Amino acid sequence: MTSESSSRTRNQHLDDDPAFALHRGGKLQVTSTVDVHDQEGLSLAYTPGVARVCDGIADTPELVEDYTWRSNLVAVVTDGTAVLGLGDIGPEASLPVMEGKSLLFKQFGDVDSVPIALACTDVDEIVETVVRMSPSFGGINLEDISAPRCFEIEKRLRERLDIPVFHDDQHGTAIVTVAALHNAARFTGRTLGDLRAVVSGAGAAGIAVTKMLIDGGIGDIAVADSKGMIYDGREGLTPVKRELAAVSNKAGLRGSIESALAGADVFIGLSAGEVPENVVATMAENSIVFAMANPNPEIHPDVARRYASVVATGRSDFPNQINNVLAFPGVFRGAFDARATAITENMKLAAATALAALVGDDLSADYVIPSPFDERVVPAVAAAVAAQAREDGVARR
Amino acid sequence: MTSESSSRTRNQHLDDDPAFALHRGGKLQVTSTVDVHDQEGLSLAYTPGVARVCDGIADTPELVEDYTWRSNLVAVVTDGTAVLGLGDIGPEASLPVMEGKSLLFKQFGDVDSVPIALACTDVDEIVETVVRMSPSFGGINLEDISAPRCFEIEKRLRERLDIPVFHDDQHGTAIVTVAALHNAARFTGRTLGDLRAVVSGAGAAGIAVTKMLIDGGIGDIAVADSKGMIYDGREGLTPVKRELAAVSNKAGLRGSIESALAGADVFIGLSAGEVPENVVATMAENSIVFAMANPNPEIHPDVARRYASVVATGRSDFPNQINNVLAFPGVFRGAFDARATAITENMKLAAATALAALVGDDLSADYVIPSPFDERVVPAVAAAVAAQAREDGVARR
Repeated sequence: MTSESSSRTRNQHLDDDPAFALHRGGKLQVTSTVDVHDQEGLSLAYTPGVARVCDGIADTPELVEDYTWRSNLVAVVTDGTAVLGLGDIGPEASLPVMEGKSLLFKQFGDVDSVPIALACTDVDEIVETVVRMSPSFGGINLEDISAPRCFEIEKRLRERLDIPVFHDDQHGTAIVTVAALHNAARFTGRTLGDLRAVVSGAGAAGIAVTKMLIDGGIGDIAVADSKGMIYDGREGLTPVKRELAAVSNKAGLRGSIESALAGADVFIGLSAGEVPENVVATMAENSIVFAMANPNPEIHPDVARRYASVVATGRSDFPNQINNVLAFPGVFRGAFDARATAITENMKLAAATALAALVGDDLSADYVIPSPFDERVVPAVAAAVAAQAREDGVARR
Repeated sequence: MTSESSSRTRNQHLDDDPAFALHRGGKLQVTSTVDVHDQEGLSLAYTPGVARVCDGIADTPELVEDYTWRSNLVAVVTDGTAVLGLGDIGPEASLPVMEGKSLLFKQFGDVDSVPIALACTDVDEIVETVVRMSPSFGGINLEDISAPRCFEIEKRLRERLDIPVFHDDQHGTAIVTVAALHNAARFTGRTLGDLRAVVSGAGAAGIAVTKMLIDGGIGDIAVADSKGMIYDGREGLTPVKRELAAVSNKAGLRGSIESALAGADVFIGLSAGEVPENVVATMAENSIVFAMANPNPEIHPDVARRYASVVATGRSDFPNQINNVLAFPGVFRGAFDARATAITENMKLAAATALAALVGDDLSADYVIPSPFDERVVPAVAAAVAAQAREDGVARR
């Protein structure tokens, strides 16, 4: 930019905060992958050469996957209604997070990615908008769209589109949580099937984590929302919670989460709120505490560690960070490598299994999940996801 | 991509064509503009630092222009209905052209750009889709959307959005044509006001070129569609053509384009079709022939040169190439530098004037318009457009 103005001076003080300074001008750019510096290059990358490629795709539609960028391109789609811990801040204010997501897709997964922040929140409008723009993309990552609309939106897009659709707040969190819990169980000499878990929070992450743990064979699992435990028969449940109640909480626990935690093996925190020390103290021996509320865990990990055998949070300044970046880049890398038309439940479980397996003999109380910067993660997750796509019959490569 | 497959072998022969070889994998990528290689970088580019930036924008919405990439980002939007000379090939097949456009935006104008090819052709649906995704972008470049829907779509988006909306097939062509014609007139010792012009083609480009030449003060100008000359009172005209008829063709020419060209000073070809040599021979002395049909000009430039003083085409292998890349990168560069909320008619004329002025004393029959690779073009056009935006009161910087 060559112009200066008083608005730039007006905002300059904000750049004292290094986060603002880093964000000036945004964090992304689109660049060419081909060299076009003269007339000859132009005549291949643009007219008349490009017309032959368009003609080729018009004749043979599948060529679009080989001769455009879209088969490596995911749209990060939001309506700005559930951004981090800030909630409903709208599409413009959500852009820095969406740019960050795209940056991580590229840096970790070598997946191209573009933020698409929408000025609508109606489920039909979001679905129609994404369907209409879908020829441009190879995959859709839904992000920071509040529950329960996110479930309906993801479901309908998965039905309408032949490209992968994945709500990371649901399934990215679930994949990493399942992997970490598998290893935490292993560390304490058990499997998932030996455990009774209690989940705090019935939003996007809470629902998805619970479903994946059920698919993964957990002994029992019950979810609490703001009103207390969700059980089969409770009045006034939303359709999603009713569906959940039918497959969870075999013990039929009612009442407060505090009472449910007495004697429980696992606490998974995915909501705002706190769990007091004396409640964690009532959990079973060798308990496992995943306190993932962001930025303040439901219980401080140092306090939880007095009682639990394994503690994890969403924070990078404590051991065992449950970070979605361990999942979404590898999941899409693998889906794109296999030119998968969908991300199946098996593919998500395969990602969790591959992630857990990377913590081999180094398993310890403070190491149940790899570090986001462990370079083995994306290749391992991608390979497992691609292989599962082929096994599930949704791969085209 | 790490996987191989039979489909890659299957397509390999296509890469014997260097255009296909260049297009393999597409021509674009999204990369980071900030360094995020460790936990500290991650905590500024993503959580928790990014939350402060989101919060800042939620509090003070104008900060989105300084702290995201959108104020330098244009969406290239198409429905694939009017792609090059191929016509209605649909959104997927249009992608290589749209990627090419984005590549040119970046390479020439340092403007970030993303192709958005839509799976809908209904005017309402296109308008709504673009409006809904508009928080993500700083500008909209409409591309290869067939007439007459393109006029309505551009008009409605300009009304609904506070960011620049520009249909390049209309106005990019017009800007470059007006600049070239201004200089061609100058070469022959005249101004636009001395000239009577005939335009072949009443599509996006023909309509826009004619309107801008009227705004630019051309003596008289008449347009022919497939049925012949458009005149005030002709039966069955579309609304756009009726509007055009009211402000053009002062001489009230009827009948064929051939008869209209007799004694005309300027022929501007913007349609498929041919104009025979004997018809060009009936034009006035010192005629000017812009035969811009792509890829085959309405009359071969060598033939036209036997009669006309100045000849231009859309082709790079003849002198005086009328190439839209002389306009759209600089227009958006200037609009973005001024943080303009619109691209006004004055801004387009300012672009044409600046472009024409770059051909100073080197003016000749074979040099009435700069080369696309002339590095003075974008800075000059951008500066003129930004200055005009400020004068028109649509600039925020």
